[in-house]
Amino acid sequence: MVVWDDIKSTYDTIGKLSKIDAQNNEITTLFLRLHLQCRELLYSTSTIELLSKIPDKNYFAFYKNKMSRAVNRDLFIDHESIQRIILCIVNDDLDGTSSEEITKALYTMAVSFCCVVDLSKTGDQKTPGTFFEYFASHWFAIMLKVQPITKIDVLNLDMRTSLTTDYIFDLGVGRPKIHMPVKTSTRERVIQVWAHQRVLDGIYGTGRFLGMLSCLSETKTDTKKREVVEICLPDQWRVYQMFIAQMYRIYYLDIPLKYKELNSIFPPIVVKPYGEMFYEIKNLFTHY
Amino acid sequence: MVVWDDIKSTYDTIGKLSKIDAQNNEITTLFLRLHLQCRELLYSTSTIELLSKIPDKNYFAFYKNKMSRAVNRDLFIDHESIQRIILCIVNDDLDGTSSEEITKALYTMAVSFCCVVDLSKTGDQKTPGTFFEYFASHWFAIMLKVQPITKIDVLNLDMRTSLTTDYIFDLGVGRPKIHMPVKTSTRERVIQVWAHQRVLDGIYGTGRFLGMLSCLSETKTDTKKREVVEICLPDQWRVYQMFIAQMYRIYYLDIPLKYKELNSIFPPIVVKPYGEMFYEIKNLFTHY
Repeated sequence: MVVWDDIKSTYDTIGKLSKIDAQNNEITTLFLRLHLQCRELLYSTSTIELLSKIPDKNYFAFYKNKMSRAVNRDLFIDHESIQRIILCIVNDDLDGTSSEEITKALYTMAVSFCCVVDLSKTGDQKTPGTFFEYFASHWFAIMLKVQPITKIDVLNLDMRTSLTTDYIFDLGVGRPKIHMPVKTSTRERVIQVWAHQRVLDGIYGTGRFLGMLSCLSETKTDTKKREVVEICLPDQWRVYQMFIAQMYRIYYLDIPLKYKELNSIFPPIVVKPYGEMFYEIKNLFTHY
Repeated sequence: MVVWDDIKSTYDTIGKLSKIDAQNNEITTLFLRLHLQCRELLYSTSTIELLSKIPDKNYFAFYKNKMSRAVNRDLFIDHESIQRIILCIVNDDLDGTSSEEITKALYTMAVSFCCVVDLSKTGDQKTPGTFFEYFASHWFAIMLKVQPITKIDVLNLDMRTSLTTDYIFDLGVGRPKIHMPVKTSTRERVIQVWAHQRVLDGIYGTGRFLGMLSCLSETKTDTKKREVVEICLPDQWRVYQMFIAQMYRIYYLDIPLKYKELNSIFPPIVVKPYGEMFYEIKNLFTHY
């Protein structure tokens, strides 16, 4: 029987490897092992149907003494499919799968780990957050073939300091740098994302860093009523995009309806399902 | 014997009154009563000397089963002095006291309540935060004779929405509006303050809102070693001030050394002890 300590041990190894070489194929293998362990632990729980207040989305939760976060039923797939889809990614055979399949595979892996933390620990927001940083940066690192950094030099006249940032992928001279914040959910803290983009634009010049935010979902569960809603503030996002800085892409594993709509309001904010990143990222830097 | 529920009850009444009329003198009376209650509860605890790593500052903590946050000994004064100082404020007799005395009185009242929460509840960051919002906005409301609002309309071409903000004091047509964020301590979340200022500048025009941040302190205690340090990121503040927006004043009840130094580096950030607000705020809007 898998216990939290086994899962923690795999997670810790991923953390150590990520810091050295986030593109390492060993990390892909460890994420698959982690998912198998999570899956086994979740098999020993019961599931609860949740009342979804979100049109066309169905949610359930895992339950063992307490309730996990909400899981989107239509995005939650089996381990064999995940293995097949991930193999396509690592073999650079994207024609062998699809954006939708990749979104589902990565959603299932990420949400399973988060649910395990929900059930195994109390009030731990940090572990899912850090996990999701390792997770999102791994797929970007594989696709971009670049090790991300989280600190850059500020050389500004008489000022010389270093700035701690979210993940930065430096594609080299004359090519864009990717500013990739990672959040399991955004809520009121999201203004930080636009503010960091503004700082990068200000220090290094507007347009040099493409802001690409990676998110898991925006669901919130009322544990008593067993209802699931999506907490979205699209008007605030529009204000941030107009008045603070411009984010280039926002990717979601479970894309919220209200944010999806931002694609079609002028001026648009481009919010896409996570899987689309894999198909567009290579063209993104030749076709702006 | 005073218990948490008594203190909570006074605190709740302050919260209710603040939302209706933050200038109400009744709130001043309630803050003094709250302080007496906190003082009585803190009398029943023991105190622990802390090892201050901050030059020229001495700290202790209250202890009852667990340890409270650090208290600056030189700023911590008796209730009789506090009553006399507060009376000077409410009677508009600022010559009867001084900036230093006001800083001490308000520091003692604020930190006492926070220590009571530290000892009475576990992991409660919200109550000290909300308390300090009521507390800081009360003194601004008294001095400015204006009720703060926390929501303003955005009317921007075809866009019409409302924006939830920190406290805004609207001094009327042709006069500045004060944007007052309140934080017991800032840490990494402080970028939000500059980002909100940027949004206000962008929507309504640069210079219409004067950003005035109110803070308690930046101390951090290592409970095992019983050491106190100040967590400050002055270089990051300078980057935010240069590249996001300009904050007009930053007031601290226990002003950190590293931030005080920002007054004398060009371009300066004006960081002052809280009490100075009372002496400068009325001239602030005729002499820029």
